[in-house]
Amino acid sequence: MQEHKITACIVPGTDPHASEYMAPHWTEMSWITGFLGETGTAVITLDQALLWTDSRYYLQAEAELQGTTVELMRESDVDCPSITEWLVAHLSPASAPRVAVNAEMYSVNGYRALKAELEEGGLSLVSIDLISPLWTEGRPAIPTSLLYEYSETYAGESVESKLARVRQAMKDKRCEALVVSALDEIGWLLNIRGKDVDYTPCLISYVVVEIDKCTLFVAPNKLDDAAHAYLERIGVCVEDYDQVFAYLQQLQVGSIMYDGGKVNEALYEAINEQVKRVNVSPSPVLKMQSIKNDVELEGERIAMRKDAVALTRFFYWLETEALQTPQTEITLAKKLGELRAMGANYTDDSFCTIAGWKGNGAIVHYHAEADACADIVGDGVLLLDSGGQYLDGTTDITRTVWVGDEALITDAVKRDYTAVLKGHIALANARFPKGTRGNQLDVLARQFLWSEGMTYGHGTGHGVGHFMGCHEGPQNIRTDNNTNPLQLGNICSDEPGLYRANEYGIRIENLIAVREAKNLGAHATGETFYEFETLTICYYDTRMIDMRRMTAQEIAWINTYHEWVYAEVAPHLTEKEAAWLKEKCKAL
Amino acid sequence: MQEHKITACIVPGTDPHASEYMAPHWTEMSWITGFLGETGTAVITLDQALLWTDSRYYLQAEAELQGTTVELMRESDVDCPSITEWLVAHLSPASAPRVAVNAEMYSVNGYRALKAELEEGGLSLVSIDLISPLWTEGRPAIPTSLLYEYSETYAGESVESKLARVRQAMKDKRCEALVVSALDEIGWLLNIRGKDVDYTPCLISYVVVEIDKCTLFVAPNKLDDAAHAYLERIGVCVEDYDQVFAYLQQLQVGSIMYDGGKVNEALYEAINEQVKRVNVSPSPVLKMQSIKNDVELEGERIAMRKDAVALTRFFYWLETEALQTPQTEITLAKKLGELRAMGANYTDDSFCTIAGWKGNGAIVHYHAEADACADIVGDGVLLLDSGGQYLDGTTDITRTVWVGDEALITDAVKRDYTAVLKGHIALANARFPKGTRGNQLDVLARQFLWSEGMTYGHGTGHGVGHFMGCHEGPQNIRTDNNTNPLQLGNICSDEPGLYRANEYGIRIENLIAVREAKNLGAHATGETFYEFETLTICYYDTRMIDMRRMTAQEIAWINTYHEWVYAEVAPHLTEKEAAWLKEKCKAL
Repeated sequence: MQEHKITACIVPGTDPHASEYMAPHWTEMSWITGFLGETGTAVITLDQALLWTDSRYYLQAEAELQGTTVELMRESDVDCPSITEWLVAHLSPASAPRVAVNAEMYSVNGYRALKAELEEGGLSLVSIDLISPLWTEGRPAIPTSLLYEYSETYAGESVESKLARVRQAMKDKRCEALVVSALDEIGWLLNIRGKDVDYTPCLISYVVVEIDKCTLFVAPNKLDDAAHAYLERIGVCVEDYDQVFAYLQQLQVGSIMYDGGKVNEALYEAINEQVKRVNVSPSPVLKMQSIKNDVELEGERIAMRKDAVALTRFFYWLETEALQTPQTEITLAKKLGELRAMGANYTDDSFCTIAGWKGNGAIVHYHAEADACADIVGDGVLLLDSGGQYLDGTTDITRTVWVGDEALITDAVKRDYTAVLKGHIALANARFPKGTRGNQLDVLARQFLWSEGMTYGHGTGHGVGHFMGCHEGPQNIRTDNNTNPLQLGNICSDEPGLYRANEYGIRIENLIAVREAKNLGAHATGETFYEFETLTICYYDTRMIDMRRMTAQEIAWINTYHEWVYAEVAPHLTEKEAAWLKEKCKAL
Repeated sequence: MQEHKITACIVPGTDPHASEYMAPHWTEMSWITGFLGETGTAVITLDQALLWTDSRYYLQAEAELQGTTVELMRESDVDCPSITEWLVAHLSPASAPRVAVNAEMYSVNGYRALKAELEEGGLSLVSIDLISPLWTEGRPAIPTSLLYEYSETYAGESVESKLARVRQAMKDKRCEALVVSALDEIGWLLNIRGKDVDYTPCLISYVVVEIDKCTLFVAPNKLDDAAHAYLERIGVCVEDYDQVFAYLQQLQVGSIMYDGGKVNEALYEAINEQVKRVNVSPSPVLKMQSIKNDVELEGERIAMRKDAVALTRFFYWLETEALQTPQTEITLAKKLGELRAMGANYTDDSFCTIAGWKGNGAIVHYHAEADACADIVGDGVLLLDSGGQYLDGTTDITRTVWVGDEALITDAVKRDYTAVLKGHIALANARFPKGTRGNQLDVLARQFLWSEGMTYGHGTGHGVGHFMGCHEGPQNIRTDNNTNPLQLGNICSDEPGLYRANEYGIRIENLIAVREAKNLGAHATGETFYEFETLTICYYDTRMIDMRRMTAQEIAWINTYHEWVYAEVAPHLTEKEAAWLKEKCKAL
């Protein structure tokens, strides 16, 4: 730092591709602090080291930072300064302090926001990679999974067609090039997949699309003969991963499009200065990718059936056999994983299963560890949030069930479960005009909670990828501002919840797809209306419903859903399992 | 235009203060085209003249443009080009076309957006006032109403206190000056009012706030001795209206704050170039103004009682006497105005009453004219949207009533009225956490319509000023994006509607104020929740309700409301009127 006249250095827990699941190669924050949690940002000054992380990670960070000089900054606490505030307060402006970051780890928009904040406080921001020269020994390599073709049978659209649409979007913005760094967008655009990180079948790479050329930047060791043949067949040029910077430097075009929310600042800075850089966020690729075609939607339905069988078998096992031997949150998650893996075309889970027993269910991003997880003993509420990656599609489902003697279900549990369920149904039932945004519909899921002064601190729905990220934009159903309307073919989760600290957590989640609403009736006013198709196929635990709080319409909705669930799932079950499911699905 | 090398000139229907109701002095668009409607923009090229206006004004524009060379551009039609599109298509880029506007008539943000659009199409934008030198003869003067003090008894806060809060907001953004051009903000800030335009008690002026000085720019003929004394008392310096430009030119401060959505481009350009200009939209003044204090809220309740008496008397008259003689939409509006004017402290209506009989009620911004309005004959739906300005506060209310034989109320009317009413109640009943925006709640009012494929093309709720504009920001309850959360003390309308072209219009509107929700119960999760206090006091026509579509909770809500309405209004009525109201308010 002194060599470079740097006063402070920020090391975020991010990678150059704005990924949700990061390869160990990029865990610079963990390397420098010793903190292994997924979310955190390190700040190093000439005489101090600090780590900002949120309340989910306080205990882990305290343990892992023990004996180091790294100070823990508890960023969920109201009196905790932001990193910028801390830097402005602690670095003397007299010394014209320079703050360094590795520009590869910041999106263009994130870098610009940080720069503006620092400059308002009298600090300057410079791009220097201070970590790479130091972290040579023991640094994990960039993953080397192989690129494979994702068949058009599953993708439903040829690369040729996708590239043609993207090029039209470029022309619409008068751009002759587009740089793509988000791994899910690259996978969608070129119908390729890999296994470079857990849970998301992506492949570390960059893409530059030009009007008559498309170049994939990928490490040569990720390409076997089949991959080379495939890329040649779809007319995509290949360059080494790191060459993207040099390529952008020499690129001679009038204008290049980039998504400032995803593309990293280093890529941006690499672009030839003569080229006009047009920030379009979300990128046209993500917009297209979020609109599932008929083949993808049908694949999603197929994946859902397999998921439904696994979950039903799991809950049958849990209620009839499991507790004859000791079980923990981890053994339950393992069993569910085994059942899910029996589904055809299963490749992985889509995220780490959350099995939250009693009070652990109230920790929204709970992550059980083998050496620190709850035993499933006694009677109580189990929250189970899980999902699978199948070649056909990606699933994500949460059910909350009562384990043990149902006579012990409390009125409080029933009240909370019913309020969550009513919101879940209200959102699933929504009809709305074309152009409506998810944040306009979010209240439908929250209204019954809000009316009693209750709420939950997470979004109601996130977009879901197709054999890709379990979280995908640009659409969502949240309270936050989001200008992207819900589009035909979007898939979202519908997952209201309610959390009672140290007691239990309740969350109920289906995936729903946007489709056109038909049969609006003779009184419709003529606008195009959309509605949701429920994709997830799994019974709700009706023992926790307070029937007095349910309307006739809500009861009818559940009964219809349960009829469908039984019809879809029963043919794939044993006789005993089917009889058990029939009872679970009986009309209310 | 040729002298200035101008290829085209845009003349918008706006004034320098971004006003809703404009003084005739600024009707440049009407002067140049002959079109007298409130909304329209003229474009003059070297050989053409065009007028853009929306479908509300098509008939009027056709009539008024008859015999002129001005071409009507129907901007509500899907194939109508925008002004920019038209200019780009019709002006040859080879001639480096220059488009002129009077920068006083554009907000900074509006001007910038226009400039960017034109430049993208190869045109340049220049600021030249081409109209003023031509329109000298017969041009109405700037209004000369007198400035008067708006007593702290009504305003509830001293100017000293308001200025101190505004100066703090300036300091928070490191600004030493603030320029204010919106007339409602000036009225609120200095506790002054005037009568320069219809419906809104504002005074044409500018204000510049500095850390130790506040200057009002106002024509000297608007100040009598009392006004001078008042301004001196509150320590406000006075300069002539036009001097604001020179003042800004010589102002020596580091930074000046302005609201780019309100302050006009000419003011912006007048600011000394050495001064940093900080765009803060909405302005801190508007934010403060939108949060009504206890005195203002109590005044609002007082105004509502007077409004309630006038409306009840009106509807009594309408049902018992009015139709014994011929009535039209205009005579009804006149009668209501007379009854409202009998209220203490009444100064004006808050907008031009909309009385829409049958099919006219389906025209959302219907404006009856004496020579073109419907006779109230037969049986049907009457939509009545009106409001008053009282020193105590501003009102705005819509009721839809059946006129004539109630046996003739159709099922269709009942279905539509009930769907609108249910949404109106759902919004009034909403509870929501602090930080919630109006666009998150809008769906509550629309959900029952949407579920049957119906909707309405206007916002659900607009902010309302306090003895000031009937429309006020920054909060609202609309489908559009609006990042401003609802704040304690905000007043909004709650006015869903449904419109059947050529048949009838239904709209039901109360004003509601945001207050803290109490009695959340033992199960609340600890966040601060808000709810609405209904301010408007007027019965709903229950004859049009389809009781089969109402829930027990909705019926209970109406019954409770009607009990309150009767208790508040009856003491101010004759015995006959009270007995009639009792019947209207009887429990469902």
